[in-house]
This record gives sequence, C-alpha cells and structure tokens, in this order.
Amino acid sequence: MKKIEHIGIAVKDIEASNDLFGKLFNQEHYKTEIVESEGVMTSFFKVGPNKIELLQATNEESPIAKFIEKKGEGIHHIAFAVENIEAEIERLQGEGFKLIHEQPKNGADDKLIAFLHPKGTNGVLIELCQDIDK
Amino acid sequence: MKKIEHIGIAVKDIEASNDLFGKLFNQEHYKTEIVESEGVMTSFFKVGPNKIELLQATNEESPIAKFIEKKGEGIHHIAFAVENIEAEIERLQGEGFKLIHEQPKNGADDKLIAFLHPKGTNGVLIELCQDIDK
Repeated sequence: MKKIEHIGIAVKDIEASNDLFGKLFNQEHYKTEIVESEGVMTSFFKVGPNKIELLQATNEESPIAKFIEKKGEGIHHIAFAVENIEAEIERLQGEGFKLIHEQPKNGADDKLIAFLHPKGTNGVLIELCQDIDK
Repeated sequence: MKKIEHIGIAVKDIEASNDLFGKLFNQEHYKTEIVESEGVMTSFFKVGPNKIELLQATNEESPIAKFIEKKGEGIHHIAFAVENIEAEIERLQGEGFKLIHEQPKNGADDKLIAFLHPKGTNGVLIELCQDIDK
C-alpha cells in the first residue's frame, strides 16, 4: 500500500460541512461528485498527499444514512492507495482477510475500489483504491 | 496543514492487532511506545508518507478504554501534521473551533500535539501535531 488515499467522513449536511472543513483546512473543497450506486454525495479536500472525502446520504437506504443512524456523524472509512488492486485483493485473501468486494468496482474520483469486511480489521472499514488512468 | 500524519485506531489487544495490521500492510510495526500521561500503549506502522497508530489502554481510566467501552474498537482520531502548532491553534480558534488543549503538549512519536473538540468537527476527533526536532 502506497499511502492513505483518503479518509471518508459521514456527515448529515454536506454544505454545512464543506464550510466547516473549509475553515479547518483553510481552503475550499475542490470537487463534488454524486455516486448513484452508493447513494452518496461526496466532496473532496486535498491535504498534501492525502484527501478528505465528505459523504452525505442521498437516500434513506444509503450505507451512509444507516451508518449515521447507528453511530452518528464521524469517520466512516480509510482508503489506501494501491498499485494493483487485483493483486492486493488476492494477497489479502491469502492472509485470511474477507473482502466485501472480491472484484474491484468503480468508485468516486476515478478509482477502482474494493472494501474489506470491518469485522476482520478491528472494526475499521478499509477501502483499497487504484487510479483508473494509469 | 501538510498531510495526514497518522490515524489512531483503538484496539483491545495490541499484540493481536500488530499481527493483523502487519498482514494488512505486509510489514512489521516499526515502534512501540507507552504514553503514561494518556494511559496508552501505542505501536506505529508506516504507509508511504502516513502512519497508522494502534492504541491500547494501559488502565481503565484511559480515554482509549472509555472509547472502546462506548463505541467498540475502531478509528479513534485523525492527526494532521502542521508546521507551527501554536499559529495553527490560534488560526483555528479565530475560526471558532474549540481546542481540548489550548497549549500544545508532548505526545507520542516526538511530537507537540493538541486536540480539537469533536463536537465542533462532525464527531471527528482531530489532532494537530508538529515535529519537536525541527
């Protein structure tokens, strides 16, 4: 794994949080994107080599709506950048980790992504992501 | 803010988690440190420019023991590297953020640190940290 690509933060009101995190980082978010398949609206901030992704549910069935209902707003997942997502999935399965996505799928921000089951990682929801344009 | 310096993960059994995260990152942790004042044992992994800090409580009054009791194991905080922690505290207070530590204190891994109140940051516990040796 190359670095923390981003940290995903579940929020109720992405416009208010864009303002809040804009003050925190002393800069505006640089991108907003809706991922229909996940039921989320996202916005991104850059912090050096890393990003912060704010996530707001776009419907009640969204995983983000369910997360906030259960745990409240807060950190939802950590995403690590990998060179080769298929090789990394295979390596992790060989180590005994369970993948939510055994095949990579398209995610926000031009990435191929796959999530690991948090039960196998001390409750931490971990995403692998690989740039699509390489 | 320069980058995500580290993500702190609260765990019950740091030895088991060192093994688990060692498999995840395909490398050993590089350091173990006890911070008596916080009641925590820590271990660190490097992932490119970033670190992962595992945190186990060393007593029942530890903030990590209380966190796990309330929320279970998982992501505890995000730490951002800053050039000048005192200037950053002053800037953030001017923006209306509340600091748990209005003056920086010594933390693990040779850092000056200060935490923001998570109520003002969408439930995310945020740490600022500056290298002591600069």
